[in-house]
Amino acid sequence: MNYAAADVKRLREETGATFADCKNALTDARSWDEAIKILDAKRDKKADKMIVADRETKQGGVFSYVHHNHNVGVLLELNCSTDFVARSEAFRKLANELALQIAGVAPKYINFEDVPADVVEEARKTILEDPALARVPAERREDFINGKLKKQFGEQVLMMQPWVKDDSIVVGDLVRKVIAETGENIVLRRFSRFELGK
Amino acid sequence: MNYAAADVKRLREETGATFADCKNALTDARSWDEAIKILDAKRDKKADKMIVADRETKQGGVFSYVHHNHNVGVLLELNCSTDFVARSEAFRKLANELALQIAGVAPKYINFEDVPADVVEEARKTILEDPALARVPAERREDFINGKLKKQFGEQVLMMQPWVKDDSIVVGDLVRKVIAETGENIVLRRFSRFELGK
Repeated sequence: MNYAAADVKRLREETGATFADCKNALTDARSWDEAIKILDAKRDKKADKMIVADRETKQGGVFSYVHHNHNVGVLLELNCSTDFVARSEAFRKLANELALQIAGVAPKYINFEDVPADVVEEARKTILEDPALARVPAERREDFINGKLKKQFGEQVLMMQPWVKDDSIVVGDLVRKVIAETGENIVLRRFSRFELGK
Repeated sequence: MNYAAADVKRLREETGATFADCKNALTDARSWDEAIKILDAKRDKKADKMIVADRETKQGGVFSYVHHNHNVGVLLELNCSTDFVARSEAFRKLANELALQIAGVAPKYINFEDVPADVVEEARKTILEDPALARVPAERREDFINGKLKKQFGEQVLMMQPWVKDDSIVVGDLVRKVIAETGENIVLRRFSRFELGK
Protein backbone atom coordinates (compact mmCIF):
# COMPACT_ATOMS: atom_id res chain seq x y z
CA MET A 1 0.00 0.00 0.00
CA ASN A 2 1.01 3.64 -0.37
CA TYR A 3 2.00 5.24 2.90
CA ALA A 4 3.52 8.40 4.34
CA ALA A 5 6.16 8.84 7.04
CA ALA A 6 3.34 9.81 9.41
CA ASP A 7 1.78 6.35 8.87
CA VAL A 8 4.98 4.64 9.97
CA LYS A 9 5.06 6.80 13.08
CA ARG A 10 1.39 6.05 13.88
CA LEU A 11 1.91 2.33 13.34
CA ARG A 12 4.93 2.31 15.64
CA GLU A 13 2.90 4.03 18.36
CA GLU A 14 0.01 1.65 17.93
CA THR A 15 1.95 -1.59 17.85
CA GLY A 16 5.24 -0.85 19.61
CA ALA A 17 7.07 -2.54 16.71
CA THR A 18 10.41 -1.28 15.34
CA PHE A 19 10.68 1.34 12.58
CA ALA A 20 11.97 -1.22 10.07
CA ASP A 21 9.21 -3.73 10.88
CA CYS A 22 6.51 -1.07 10.49
CA LYS A 23 7.93 0.08 7.14
CA ASN A 24 8.10 -3.50 5.85
CA ALA A 25 4.59 -4.27 7.05
CA LEU A 26 3.16 -1.18 5.32
CA THR A 27 5.05 -2.03 2.11
CA ASP A 28 3.77 -5.61 2.08
CA ALA A 29 0.20 -4.91 3.22
CA ARG A 30 -2.74 -3.87 1.08
CA SER A 31 -4.47 -2.11 3.97
CA TRP A 32 -3.83 -0.62 7.39
CA ASP A 33 -5.49 -3.60 9.11
CA GLU A 34 -3.36 -6.02 7.17
CA ALA A 35 -0.20 -4.15 8.22
CA ILE A 36 -1.27 -4.57 11.84
CA LYS A 37 -1.97 -8.26 11.25
CA ILE A 38 1.51 -8.73 9.78
CA LEU A 39 3.06 -7.09 12.82
CA ASP A 40 0.89 -9.15 15.21
CA ALA A 41 1.98 -12.36 13.51
CA LYS A 42 5.61 -11.30 13.67
CA ARG A 43 5.27 -10.45 17.36
CA ASP A 44 3.57 -13.76 18.16
CA LYS A 45 6.33 -15.63 16.34
CA LYS A 46 8.94 -13.74 18.32
CA ALA A 47 7.09 -14.41 21.58
CA ASP A 48 6.76 -18.10 20.70
CA LYS A 49 10.49 -18.25 20.13
CA MET A 50 11.08 -16.76 23.59
CA ILE A 51 8.71 -19.23 25.17
CA VAL A 52 10.13 -22.18 23.26
CA ALA A 53 13.64 -21.14 24.27
CA ASP A 54 12.27 -21.82 27.78
CA ARG A 55 14.98 -19.92 29.54
CA GLU A 56 14.93 -20.09 33.30
CA THR A 57 12.44 -17.66 34.77
CA LYS A 58 13.69 -17.19 38.30
CA GLN A 59 13.61 -13.42 38.47
CA GLY A 60 10.54 -11.25 38.62
CA GLY A 61 8.52 -10.12 41.57
CA VAL A 62 5.57 -10.44 43.91
CA PHE A 63 2.81 -7.89 43.33
CA SER A 64 -0.52 -7.14 44.95
CA TYR A 65 -3.70 -5.26 44.27
CA VAL A 66 -6.44 -4.50 46.80
CA HIS A 67 -9.75 -2.77 46.01
CA HIS A 68 -10.03 0.58 47.79
CA ASN A 69 -12.89 -0.76 49.95
CA HIS A 70 -10.78 -3.81 50.92
CA ASN A 71 -13.36 -6.39 49.83
CA VAL A 72 -11.17 -8.03 47.16
CA GLY A 73 -7.42 -8.51 47.00
CA VAL A 74 -4.94 -10.30 44.75
CA LEU A 75 -1.36 -11.44 45.29
CA LEU A 76 0.68 -12.81 42.39
CA GLU A 77 4.17 -13.88 41.42
CA LEU A 78 5.27 -12.94 37.91
CA ASN A 79 8.56 -14.39 36.66
CA CYS A 80 11.04 -13.42 33.95
CA SER A 81 14.70 -14.23 33.26
CA THR A 82 16.61 -11.15 34.37
CA ASP A 83 16.45 -8.62 37.15
CA PHE A 84 16.73 -5.92 34.48
CA VAL A 85 13.35 -6.83 32.99
CA ALA A 86 11.87 -7.44 36.46
CA ARG A 87 12.51 -3.78 37.26
CA SER A 88 11.22 -2.48 33.91
CA GLU A 89 8.06 -0.44 33.64
CA ALA A 90 6.56 -2.80 31.02
CA PHE A 91 6.92 -5.77 33.37
CA ARG A 92 5.47 -3.95 36.38
CA LYS A 93 2.59 -2.59 34.34
CA LEU A 94 1.82 -6.13 33.15
CA ALA A 95 1.87 -7.40 36.76
CA ASN A 96 -0.62 -4.68 37.67
CA GLU A 97 -2.91 -5.44 34.72
CA LEU A 98 -2.92 -9.15 35.59
CA ALA A 99 -3.77 -8.37 39.23
CA LEU A 100 -6.62 -6.07 38.15
CA GLN A 101 -7.96 -8.74 35.79
CA ILE A 102 -7.84 -11.44 38.47
CA ALA A 103 -9.53 -9.14 41.00
CA GLY A 104 -12.31 -8.27 38.57
CA VAL A 105 -12.97 -11.55 36.76
CA ALA A 106 -11.86 -14.22 39.30
CA PRO A 107 -10.32 -16.89 37.03
CA LYS A 108 -9.87 -20.36 38.47
CA TYR A 109 -6.80 -21.34 36.44
CA ILE A 110 -3.83 -19.58 34.86
CA ASN A 111 -3.49 -21.68 31.66
CA PHE A 112 -5.72 -24.24 29.97
CA GLU A 113 -3.11 -26.85 30.95
CA ASP A 114 -3.89 -26.14 34.62
CA VAL A 115 -7.47 -27.42 34.33
CA PRO A 116 -7.42 -30.85 36.09
CA ALA A 117 -7.38 -33.75 33.62
CA ASP A 118 -10.52 -35.38 35.07
CA VAL A 119 -12.48 -32.14 34.71
CA VAL A 120 -11.45 -31.87 31.03
CA GLU A 121 -12.26 -35.56 30.49
CA GLU A 122 -15.76 -35.08 31.92
CA ALA A 123 -16.38 -32.13 29.59
CA ARG A 124 -14.99 -34.10 26.63
CA LYS A 125 -17.47 -36.90 27.30
CA THR A 126 -20.38 -34.45 27.18
CA ILE A 127 -19.15 -33.05 23.86
CA LEU A 128 -18.84 -36.58 22.40
CA GLU A 129 -22.56 -37.02 23.10
CA ASP A 130 -23.40 -33.79 21.25
CA PRO A 131 -25.43 -34.67 18.08
CA ALA A 132 -23.65 -31.81 16.25
CA LEU A 133 -20.45 -33.83 16.37
CA ALA A 134 -21.84 -36.46 13.99
CA ARG A 135 -22.18 -33.84 11.27
CA VAL A 136 -18.50 -32.84 11.54
CA PRO A 137 -16.16 -34.61 9.08
CA ALA A 138 -14.04 -37.22 10.89
CA GLU A 139 -10.74 -35.45 10.20
CA ARG A 140 -12.02 -32.23 11.79
CA ARG A 141 -13.59 -33.80 14.89
CA GLU A 142 -10.56 -33.39 17.16
CA ASP A 143 -10.42 -29.66 16.29
CA PHE A 144 -14.17 -29.39 16.89
CA ILE A 145 -13.83 -30.99 20.33
CA ASN A 146 -10.83 -28.85 21.30
CA GLY A 147 -12.63 -25.72 20.14
CA LYS A 148 -15.64 -26.58 22.30
CA LEU A 149 -13.43 -27.34 25.29
CA LYS A 150 -11.50 -24.10 25.00
CA LYS A 151 -14.76 -22.17 24.73
CA GLN A 152 -16.15 -23.93 27.78
CA PHE A 153 -13.09 -23.33 29.96
CA GLY A 154 -12.15 -19.97 28.46
CA GLU A 155 -14.04 -18.05 31.13
CA GLN A 156 -12.20 -19.82 33.95
CA VAL A 157 -8.73 -19.63 32.41
CA LEU A 158 -6.98 -16.30 32.94
CA MET A 159 -4.87 -16.39 29.77
CA MET A 160 -7.96 -17.11 27.64
CA GLN A 161 -10.16 -14.41 29.19
CA PRO A 162 -10.90 -11.26 27.18
CA TRP A 163 -8.89 -8.47 28.77
CA VAL A 164 -11.19 -6.28 30.91
CA LYS A 165 -9.74 -3.10 29.42
CA ASP A 166 -9.91 -4.18 25.75
CA ASP A 167 -11.94 -7.26 24.95
CA SER A 168 -10.59 -7.46 21.38
CA ILE A 169 -7.60 -9.32 22.86
CA VAL A 170 -7.26 -12.02 25.50
CA VAL A 171 -5.00 -11.76 28.55
CA GLY A 172 -2.50 -14.18 26.98
CA ASP A 173 -2.01 -11.67 24.13
CA LEU A 174 -1.17 -9.00 26.68
CA VAL A 175 1.54 -11.24 28.12
CA ARG A 176 2.86 -12.18 24.64
CA LYS A 177 3.11 -8.50 23.77
CA VAL A 178 5.37 -7.82 26.77
CA ILE A 179 7.38 -10.97 26.00
CA ALA A 180 8.03 -9.61 22.49
CA GLU A 181 8.76 -6.13 23.85
CA THR A 182 11.24 -7.27 26.47
CA GLY A 183 12.67 -10.27 24.61
CA GLU A 184 12.22 -12.47 27.70
CA ASN A 185 9.88 -15.26 28.58
CA ILE A 186 7.38 -14.07 31.19
CA VAL A 187 5.42 -16.54 33.29
CA LEU A 188 2.66 -15.95 35.82
CA ARG A 189 3.68 -18.58 38.37
CA ARG A 190 0.84 -18.34 40.89
CA PHE A 191 -1.84 -16.11 42.31
CA SER A 192 -4.14 -15.84 45.32
CA ARG A 193 -7.45 -14.00 45.24
CA PHE A 194 -9.32 -13.27 48.48
CA GLU A 195 -12.85 -11.93 48.53
CA LEU A 196 -14.25 -10.79 51.87
CA GLY A 197 -16.45 -13.51 53.39
CA LYS A 198 -16.18 -15.89 50.41
CA MET B 1 0.64 2.24 95.84
CA ASN B 2 0.78 6.03 96.00
CA TYR B 3 0.31 7.67 92.64
CA ALA B 4 -0.21 11.06 91.04
CA ALA B 5 -2.61 12.17 88.29
CA ALA B 6 0.35 12.08 85.87
CA ASP B 7 0.75 8.35 86.60
CA VAL B 8 -2.84 7.66 85.59
CA LYS B 9 -2.27 9.59 82.37
CA ARG B 10 0.95 7.71 81.61
CA LEU B 11 -0.68 4.36 82.35
CA ARG B 12 -3.57 5.17 80.03
CA GLU B 13 -1.16 6.04 77.25
CA GLU B 14 0.85 2.90 77.80
CA THR B 15 -2.01 0.43 78.04
CA GLY B 16 -4.93 2.06 76.25
CA ALA B 17 -7.17 1.18 79.23
CA THR B 18 -9.92 3.50 80.53
CA PHE B 19 -9.32 6.19 83.14
CA ALA B 20 -11.30 4.29 85.80
CA ASP B 21 -9.48 1.01 85.13
CA CYS B 22 -6.08 2.70 85.36
CA LYS B 23 -7.01 4.42 88.65
CA ASN B 24 -8.24 1.13 90.14
CA ALA B 25 -5.18 -0.76 88.97
CA LEU B 26 -2.83 1.82 90.55
CA THR B 27 -4.82 1.75 93.79
CA ASP B 28 -4.71 -2.05 94.03
CA ALA B 29 -1.13 -2.55 92.84
CA ARG B 30 2.02 -2.35 94.92
CA SER B 31 4.17 -1.38 91.93
CA TRP B 32 3.96 0.06 88.43
CA ASP B 33 4.60 -3.34 86.86
CA GLU B 34 1.84 -4.91 88.94
CA ALA B 35 -0.59 -2.21 87.78
CA ILE B 36 0.23 -3.12 84.18
CA LYS B 37 -0.24 -6.81 84.97
CA ILE B 38 -3.66 -6.11 86.48
CA LEU B 39 -4.71 -4.21 83.35
CA ASP B 40 -3.31 -6.96 81.08
CA ALA B 41 -5.32 -9.60 82.93
CA LYS B 42 -8.47 -7.46 82.74
CA ARG B 43 -7.93 -6.95 79.00
CA ASP B 44 -7.38 -10.65 78.37
CA LYS B 45 -10.54 -11.49 80.30
CA LYS B 46 -12.50 -8.97 78.26
CA ALA B 47 -11.02 -10.33 75.02
CA ASP B 48 -11.81 -13.90 76.05
CA LYS B 49 -15.42 -12.86 76.64
CA MET B 50 -15.57 -11.39 73.14
CA ILE B 51 -14.10 -14.54 71.64
CA VAL B 52 -16.36 -16.84 73.67
CA ALA B 53 -19.38 -14.80 72.63
CA ASP B 54 -18.37 -16.00 69.13
CA ARG B 55 -20.36 -13.42 67.30
CA GLU B 56 -20.40 -13.75 63.56
CA THR B 57 -17.31 -12.28 61.99
CA LYS B 58 -18.38 -11.60 58.43
CA GLN B 59 -17.11 -8.05 58.08
CA GLY B 60 -13.51 -6.94 57.86
CA GLY B 61 -11.26 -6.64 54.88
CA VAL B 62 -8.58 -7.97 52.57
CA PHE B 63 -5.16 -6.40 53.06
CA SER B 64 -1.77 -6.80 51.42
CA TYR B 65 1.83 -5.98 52.05
CA VAL B 66 4.66 -6.23 49.52
CA HIS B 67 8.35 -5.59 50.26
CA HIS B 68 9.65 -2.57 48.34
CA ASN B 69 11.94 -4.83 46.27
CA HIS B 70 8.97 -7.09 45.40
CA ASN B 71 10.63 -10.30 46.62
CA VAL B 72 8.05 -11.07 49.34
CA GLY B 73 4.33 -10.35 49.50
CA VAL B 74 1.43 -11.17 51.78
CA LEU B 75 -2.33 -11.16 51.28
CA LEU B 76 -4.67 -11.69 54.23
CA GLU B 77 -8.32 -11.57 55.22
CA LEU B 78 -9.05 -10.18 58.67
CA ASN B 79 -12.61 -10.48 59.97
CA CYS B 80 -14.65 -8.66 62.61
CA SER B 81 -18.37 -8.25 63.34
CA THR B 82 -19.21 -4.78 62.08
CA ASP B 83 -18.30 -2.54 59.18
CA PHE B 84 -17.70 0.22 61.72
CA VAL B 85 -14.76 -1.64 63.27
CA ALA B 86 -13.57 -2.84 59.85
CA ARG B 87 -13.05 0.80 58.89
CA SER B 88 -11.39 1.77 62.19
CA GLU B 89 -7.74 2.73 62.39
CA ALA B 90 -7.03 0.14 65.12
CA PHE B 91 -8.32 -2.68 62.88
CA ARG B 92 -6.41 -1.53 59.81
CA LYS B 93 -3.22 -1.05 61.81
CA LEU B 94 -3.60 -4.59 63.16
CA ALA B 95 -4.07 -5.95 59.61
CA ASN B 96 -0.86 -4.19 58.59
CA GLU B 97 1.10 -5.49 61.58
CA LEU B 98 -0.06 -9.05 60.88
CA ALA B 99 0.97 -8.74 57.22
CA LEU B 100 4.40 -7.41 58.21
CA GLN B 101 4.85 -10.25 60.71
CA ILE B 102 3.87 -12.89 58.14
CA ALA B 103 6.18 -11.35 55.52
CA GLY B 104 9.11 -11.30 57.94
CA VAL B 105 8.72 -14.54 59.90
CA ALA B 106 6.82 -16.83 57.47
CA PRO B 107 4.52 -18.76 59.83
CA LYS B 108 2.98 -21.98 58.53
CA TYR B 109 -0.21 -21.87 60.59
CA ILE B 110 -2.46 -19.19 62.08
CA ASN B 111 -3.44 -20.95 65.34
CA PHE B 112 -2.12 -23.99 67.17
CA GLU B 113 -5.42 -25.70 66.28
CA ASP B 114 -4.48 -25.41 62.59
CA VAL B 115 -1.49 -27.75 62.92
CA PRO B 116 -2.64 -31.04 61.32
CA ALA B 117 -3.57 -33.70 63.91
CA ASP B 118 -1.12 -36.28 62.52
CA VAL B 119 1.77 -33.81 62.75
CA VAL B 120 0.91 -33.09 66.40
CA GLU B 121 0.52 -36.81 67.10
CA GLU B 122 3.98 -37.52 65.66
CA ALA B 123 5.52 -34.84 67.89
CA ARG B 124 3.61 -36.16 70.93
CA LYS B 125 5.07 -39.64 70.36
CA THR B 126 8.61 -38.21 70.39
CA ILE B 127 7.91 -36.37 73.65
CA LEU B 128 6.52 -39.57 75.23
CA GLU B 129 9.90 -41.19 74.55
CA ASP B 130 11.72 -38.33 76.29
CA PRO B 131 13.39 -39.69 79.50
CA ALA B 132 12.65 -36.36 81.22
CA LEU B 133 8.95 -37.26 81.16
CA ALA B 134 9.46 -40.13 83.67
CA ARG B 135 10.65 -37.63 86.28
CA VAL B 136 7.47 -35.51 85.94
CA PRO B 137 4.71 -36.37 88.46
CA ALA B 138 1.87 -38.24 86.75
CA GLU B 139 -0.71 -35.49 87.35
CA ARG B 140 1.50 -32.90 85.66
CA ARG B 141 2.48 -34.99 82.63
CA GLU B 142 -0.29 -33.72 80.33
CA ASP B 143 0.76 -30.11 81.05
CA PHE B 144 4.39 -31.06 80.44
CA ILE B 145 3.53 -32.61 77.07
CA ASN B 146 1.36 -29.67 76.02
CA GLY B 147 4.07 -27.23 77.06
CA LYS B 148 6.63 -29.07 74.95
CA LEU B 149 4.26 -29.20 71.98
CA LYS B 150 3.46 -25.49 72.15
CA LYS B 151 7.16 -24.69 72.36
CA GLN B 152 7.90 -26.92 69.38
CA PHE B 153 5.16 -25.44 67.17
CA GLY B 154 5.35 -21.91 68.56
CA GLU B 155 7.72 -20.80 65.80
CA GLN B 156 5.40 -22.02 63.04
CA VAL B 157 2.18 -20.68 64.55
CA LEU B 158 1.57 -16.99 63.87
CA MET B 159 -0.43 -16.28 67.03
CA MET B 160 2.28 -17.85 69.22
CA GLN B 161 5.21 -16.05 67.56
CA PRO B 162 6.93 -13.21 69.43
CA TRP B 163 5.89 -9.98 67.72
CA VAL B 164 8.74 -8.73 65.50
CA LYS B 165 8.38 -5.19 66.84
CA ASP B 166 8.23 -6.11 70.56
CA ASP B 167 9.18 -9.65 71.52
CA SER B 168 7.86 -9.26 75.08
CA ILE B 169 4.44 -10.15 73.64
CA VAL B 170 3.24 -12.72 71.12
CA VAL B 171 1.15 -11.89 68.05
CA GLY B 172 -1.96 -13.33 69.72
CA ASP B 173 -1.62 -10.67 72.45
CA LEU B 174 -1.59 -7.99 69.78
CA VAL B 175 -4.89 -9.31 68.42
CA ARG B 176 -6.41 -9.66 71.90
CA LYS B 177 -5.48 -6.03 72.62
CA VAL B 178 -7.43 -4.82 69.59
CA ILE B 179 -10.33 -7.14 70.48
CA ALA B 180 -10.47 -5.51 73.92
CA GLU B 181 -10.11 -2.02 72.43
CA THR B 182 -12.84 -2.44 69.84
CA GLY B 183 -15.12 -4.75 71.82
CA GLU B 184 -15.43 -7.10 68.84
CA ASN B 185 -14.08 -10.53 68.08
CA ILE B 186 -11.35 -10.30 65.43
CA VAL B 187 -10.28 -13.36 63.45
CA LEU B 188 -7.49 -13.78 60.92
CA ARG B 189 -9.31 -16.04 58.48
CA ARG B 190 -6.55 -16.82 55.96
CA PHE B 191 -3.32 -15.60 54.47
CA SER B 192 -1.06 -16.20 51.45
CA ARG B 193 2.65 -15.49 51.48
CA PHE B 194 4.63 -15.53 48.23
CA GLU B 195 8.41 -15.36 48.16
CA LEU B 196 10.07 -14.86 44.77
CA GLY B 197 11.29 -18.19 43.40
CA LYS B 198 10.28 -20.23 46.47
